[in-house]
Amino acid sequence: MALKAVVTVHLKPGVLDPQGRAVAEALHGLGYGEVGETRIGKRIEMDLDTADAVSAKARVEEMAAKLLANPVIESFAVDIV
Amino acid sequence: MALKAVVTVHLKPGVLDPQGRAVAEALHGLGYGEVGETRIGKRIEMDLDTADAVSAKARVEEMAAKLLANPVIESFAVDIV
Repeated sequence: MALKAVVTVHLKPGVLDPQGRAVAEALHGLGYGEVGETRIGKRIEMDLDTADAVSAKARVEEMAAKLLANPVIESFAVDIV
Repeated sequence: MALKAVVTVHLKPGVLDPQGRAVAEALHGLGYGEVGETRIGKRIEMDLDTADAVSAKARVEEMAAKLLANPVIESFAVDIV
């Protein structure tokens, strides 16, 4: 059986997000004045060739810490679906 | 009252995702052989200065179609939380 993992990676609170700031300013320019703080993260979906959801989650958390997120400025969450 | 919107943007099925392919290959190189197809999308969180969740959702869907996603190759989903 195959599982699917969803890893969301986002900047830690307090880390400046210039891309998010630029998006918010562009939306203001388009007339969407209600937009406030905007933060942009990543969402990584991967198929996993394993049937063991518990060990899959632990291994994907390892992958996220090693490769998918920069632990200095980003935090991440792993869901197995 | 303020609301928060979460917009997830992902490539449409069938659109090649070279960044996802590169991540999957890097994970194989690190010993995570169970990783299959990997797709990388965006997750945009924004604060909204409005109390009306119904019109907020419609307006964020407009924003996503105009600015946040490329409708040729990407689809998006909006959640108001």
